[in-house]
Amino acid sequence: MIKSLTKAVVLLSGGLDSSTVVAIAQDQGFEVYALSFSYGQRHTAELEAAKAVAKQFGLTQHVVVDIDLRRFGGSALTDDIEVPKGRDLDQMAGDIPITYVPARNTIFLSYALAWAEVLGAGHIFIGVNAIDYSGYPDCRPEFIEAFERMANLATRAGVEGETALRIETPLLQLSKAQIIRKGIALGVDYAQTNSCYDPLASGAPCNECDACLLRAQGFRKAGLSDPLISRYA
Amino acid sequence: MIKSLTKAVVLLSGGLDSSTVVAIAQDQGFEVYALSFSYGQRHTAELEAAKAVAKQFGLTQHVVVDIDLRRFGGSALTDDIEVPKGRDLDQMAGDIPITYVPARNTIFLSYALAWAEVLGAGHIFIGVNAIDYSGYPDCRPEFIEAFERMANLATRAGVEGETALRIETPLLQLSKAQIIRKGIALGVDYAQTNSCYDPLASGAPCNECDACLLRAQGFRKAGLSDPLISRYA
Repeated sequence: MIKSLTKAVVLLSGGLDSSTVVAIAQDQGFEVYALSFSYGQRHTAELEAAKAVAKQFGLTQHVVVDIDLRRFGGSALTDDIEVPKGRDLDQMAGDIPITYVPARNTIFLSYALAWAEVLGAGHIFIGVNAIDYSGYPDCRPEFIEAFERMANLATRAGVEGETALRIETPLLQLSKAQIIRKGIALGVDYAQTNSCYDPLASGAPCNECDACLLRAQGFRKAGLSDPLISRYA
Repeated sequence: MIKSLTKAVVLLSGGLDSSTVVAIAQDQGFEVYALSFSYGQRHTAELEAAKAVAKQFGLTQHVVVDIDLRRFGGSALTDDIEVPKGRDLDQMAGDIPITYVPARNTIFLSYALAWAEVLGAGHIFIGVNAIDYSGYPDCRPEFIEAFERMANLATRAGVEGETALRIETPLLQLSKAQIIRKGIALGVDYAQTNSCYDPLASGAPCNECDACLLRAQGFRKAGLSDPLISRYA
């Protein structure tokens, strides 16, 4: 089987970062197959955002896979644990917060790997970021490199000597402000994206969790106002 | 968080190999947390076997996670593709058969990793085998090593410098006959285990697929008769 050079699986949560990644992959000429997860998040605003983004960009296919990470527990994003509010942005990268979901990116990338192998796609995009991030271990470059290496041994690629599969992380070394500027240049409608860990019943962001604080700081540093805020104003 | 030295997550399909691994882990003094998957297999005989084995060994916990690998397709084990029968055992390791499920072991191990992190378990057992095996890429020792490396970067272990997580593969270098002898010494009731890729409606093994042929050869070389065959005789 010869891998298509044009197909890419893109992990799409519906947040600011992954929505920008969709735009970047499409801009690079890839045919985008977007993959989202319903994983027992305490809210569905993210998934609604993912669907809106997939629609806006006219993606080839958008699959939402149900996985139940609540079976194992251990995170404020899946369990009945309070999401921390008003944390100091400078301290985020220093420790692993309670919003960390054990092995989440590993599981997400593993599903993407399965789909990529079936599609014959040689690229998997993920919007991890090592600059303005929450301190999750599975967002670090060394994790991504190790996953890529493992992925190539896990599949036909490793046995049959095909073109290696690449894990693409176009946001890895960008600040949140740089990500936002890039996304706007590529036509991302940030009013449709929602990164909040704990949105209100209306879907409006809480503006106090780590994700909201990082997003607000990004728009501020980019000298722009966040259209998501005006959408719910 | 200090990892318990006694807890282990064991991947349990209900087949001959993984059932033997449960016995080995328990014999080594681990408190066994067994993990099975309902992944769109075309039959449920495997899961019934897994439950019987978990019960026989009085395991601390046995969780069956629903995952839908049919969403991506690409395998005779999940799709409407015929399972090959009567293949030459000597040629199995040479090519990747149609029963290969893309990224299956990667996904299984990723879930095990999530559970291990929540439990504080430092060991994950998987019954992969590099001798009498079907030629799947994700059963090779280099894949397991790469997964272990990735897993330690994916989780708190890699950040906080805790005891590293180990992927344990006690069957890796054993022949099927050696596995069977070891299992019998440890009290595994092989009449309860079912490895068949395509069992009859009664749950009886087909005796013609790769898994059945490898199992039959193993019992023959061990000089034993397979109690599963007499169970359905």
